[in-house]
Amino acid sequence: MRHDHLLTARQLSREDIEEVLDRAAELDADPSAARERNAGTLLGLCFFEPSTRTKMSFEAAIKRLGGDVVDMGSVDSSSVKKGESLADTVRVIEGYADALVLRHPLEGSAKMASEYVDVPILNAGDGAGHHPTQTLLDLYTIRETAGLDDLTIGIMGDLKYGRTVHSLATALTNFDAHQHFISPESLKLPRSVRYDLHEAGANVREHTDLEEVLASLDVLYVTRIQRERFPDENEYHKVAGQYQIDAETLEAASDDLTVMHPLPRVDEIAPEVDDTAYANYFEQAHNGVPVRMALLDLLMEGER
Amino acid sequence: MRHDHLLTARQLSREDIEEVLDRAAELDADPSAARERNAGTLLGLCFFEPSTRTKMSFEAAIKRLGGDVVDMGSVDSSSVKKGESLADTVRVIEGYADALVLRHPLEGSAKMASEYVDVPILNAGDGAGHHPTQTLLDLYTIRETAGLDDLTIGIMGDLKYGRTVHSLATALTNFDAHQHFISPESLKLPRSVRYDLHEAGANVREHTDLEEVLASLDVLYVTRIQRERFPDENEYHKVAGQYQIDAETLEAASDDLTVMHPLPRVDEIAPEVDDTAYANYFEQAHNGVPVRMALLDLLMEGER
Amino acid sequence: MRHDHLLTARQLSREDIEEVLDRAAELDADPSAARERNAGTLLGLCFFEPSTRTKMSFEAAIKRLGGDVVDMGSVDSSSVKKGESLADTVRVIEGYADALVLRHPLEGSAKMASEYVDVPILNAGDGAGHHPTQTLLDLYTIRETAGLDDLTIGIMGDLKYGRTVHSLATALTNFDAHQHFISPESLKLPRSVRYDLHEAGANVREHTDLEEVLASLDVLYVTRIQRERFPDENEYHKVAGQYQIDAETLEAASDDLTVMHPLPRVDEIAPEVDDTAYANYFEQAHNGVPVRMALLDLLMEGER
Repeated sequence: MRHDHLLTARQLSREDIEEVLDRAAELDADPSAARERNAGTLLGLCFFEPSTRTKMSFEAAIKRLGGDVVDMGSVDSSSVKKGESLADTVRVIEGYADALVLRHPLEGSAKMASEYVDVPILNAGDGAGHHPTQTLLDLYTIRETAGLDDLTIGIMGDLKYGRTVHSLATALTNFDAHQHFISPESLKLPRSVRYDLHEAGANVREHTDLEEVLASLDVLYVTRIQRERFPDENEYHKVAGQYQIDAETLEAASDDLTVMHPLPRVDEIAPEVDDTAYANYFEQAHNGVPVRMALLDLLMEGER
Repeated sequence: MRHDHLLTARQLSREDIEEVLDRAAELDADPSAARERNAGTLLGLCFFEPSTRTKMSFEAAIKRLGGDVVDMGSVDSSSVKKGESLADTVRVIEGYADALVLRHPLEGSAKMASEYVDVPILNAGDGAGHHPTQTLLDLYTIRETAGLDDLTIGIMGDLKYGRTVHSLATALTNFDAHQHFISPESLKLPRSVRYDLHEAGANVREHTDLEEVLASLDVLYVTRIQRERFPDENEYHKVAGQYQIDAETLEAASDDLTVMHPLPRVDEIAPEVDDTAYANYFEQAHNGVPVRMALLDLLMEGER
Repeated sequence: MRHDHLLTARQLSREDIEEVLDRAAELDADPSAARERNAGTLLGLCFFEPSTRTKMSFEAAIKRLGGDVVDMGSVDSSSVKKGESLADTVRVIEGYADALVLRHPLEGSAKMASEYVDVPILNAGDGAGHHPTQTLLDLYTIRETAGLDDLTIGIMGDLKYGRTVHSLATALTNFDAHQHFISPESLKLPRSVRYDLHEAGANVREHTDLEEVLASLDVLYVTRIQRERFPDENEYHKVAGQYQIDAETLEAASDDLTVMHPLPRVDEIAPEVDDTAYANYFEQAHNGVPVRMALLDLLMEGER
């Protein structure tokens, strides 16, 4: 990869993406060569916001590569409470590790941090900004199931606030994908994202009703509609209920449909779907490990 | 071991127990062969309740085996707070690890989790339910000191609520053990446990006074009487005071008596006992490491 | 090293200090030999108070040595909450690790703990008491920049409460150092420390104004003046403002001046200083890793 840091999915060309996914597939099949070259590598975990799966997934990835982590721990127990700036924190921690994973509530933090340190920074989510490793594992999952060429994908749920959605939609413009966005009126894609997609020449359609497109989809990417987005509990239940998937909903789908979800889910996908061939969200979560192994392996390659 | 998971001490036959204790003794003497076969193994730590010694002991065990952990962290920082079900959490985490250790406040959680995942589950305590690895380290400690055959053991303190006690008493029915239960009236063994012991043909007696049996004991297993079990502070002090051990108490004991305690202790055993030959509770805690190494080694053997 | 534990900088002779710093320099250049002899070593982390950099630095050190940690976690989730004594906690944890790092709010805790366990204890700060590994990394940094012989050092800021300062000043009496202490009247060195320095025959001067000595300094060691030391916000700002360093302040300094700070900083050193050749505080923090590697390597050597 020609990059020193992974800050946003937008920085990745189709070539970059394919390099990461190819490497991930290789490592998934046989990590032994990568274990040798990464043995002893220390990854600094700087999570300024709580995270379970992203953090565990990075931790599993570096350990599967024969390396280890050095964890800043929660912000409550850190120097941040004593008033230390992010720039100072990352400049101290870079002395303890060979690369840093950063999650921070403020958009742009990862880019800022990358200007202060010499080791690679991997953005694990900065506010409403970016979460590029999630996008890469989504793309890996799509490539392993439906394939990234001539893809028809439906992205459903909270399209307004979900950084996962914005990042994936943007990345998909590198491929020959038909994107359908399905959401309540109040949670449609933000104008800025719609503009970016348009600029990139993306093939995009918006819907309020899943039925309109379900039969044509190769992939249905479901996201959580968060209660806290609605001023009124009743309003939330009315809207959320329309964007839930169960076995009955899926009767209208193609047999080859792949259902994805960035997890955690609450009610968006009924548990009865888990045992169907459609369900791919747990595999999707598991794919975080080989994809993050690939990223770490490629970024450390640039350091050697 | 013929088991895929370790959910309860009750699932273990005498043969299973001896296999674990034999392996523990081997690993305690020389872990090198096991290090080779377990190198790189990742153990997922899923502690839905706080724990110090059980968690550290598992962590030491897998690391002494040449493996490592991936830790879910505290529930406060996890997806559980977003409303994720236990079934979903363990299905995600099984993609990050080769086996899972689960502690959860709800009885039956470990069994439930084992129905959703393909990797081995080790129950590290589920509510008032089971804590089988504690029982195995207790048995290991007894075997190393008094021996498990022709054993006379006194189990004292809170016999009503202590899952450690219930599990140990049940497991001892696999051996030729005389069990004496010593407690205040209000904290006697629950009827269900007494019934199970009876059904298993156990040799059991109940007492309210330690003096009645102390001289005959090979092992005295002391547990903590918790303040919060008593509506009234005075009542607690009156009762707890009767079940405390000090040097004077032990004058009436056999010279070969082994004193055990699952720890942490508060006032049940006076510090002056620590330096006597009776004291075995710190060794008992340390035995958690070889016993958990043995369990992990045996369960992973089944996976290979 | 002739010591079983590292409890205070005061226990270290000049010879001890030089042995640690020499070993640190060796390991910084090539850790491979030390990796072989320390592979598999487990370091128990017992932090009864929050810490970011000290803990991460120890973690990086043992992992760079090929070992690993077993972490007690935060006190909130530990047996300490159930009323367990420090003596019991460390006696349990010594069964999980080959050496223990202890941070505790009470002065004297590390010494007390060392009387109960057989494994080496490294004091990572006990209350207002000692923090010897910080002192050693400070000495290492001074030796790498200005050198420890014929040194003129200014130590500035909160000299009353800063254990870092007391420890460093005491350790410097082993070397041919001219020590200038610069602080507001209300935060001068405590009488006891001044007495110790006098007894050790140290060459010491006190100032309220940095200008008096800045030009003569090889090293300026800046510490944080804590808001909470002052009853009045205005008083704090007036005092703190006088002990801040910026590019203009440093115009009066020697070109070879090294500026140090134990970090985290708040306003004591302006960010514009970071890019000058004076700034050495991030390197200083990074030096914690080789210095702690050296300490662990030397203490474990005594165990083999």
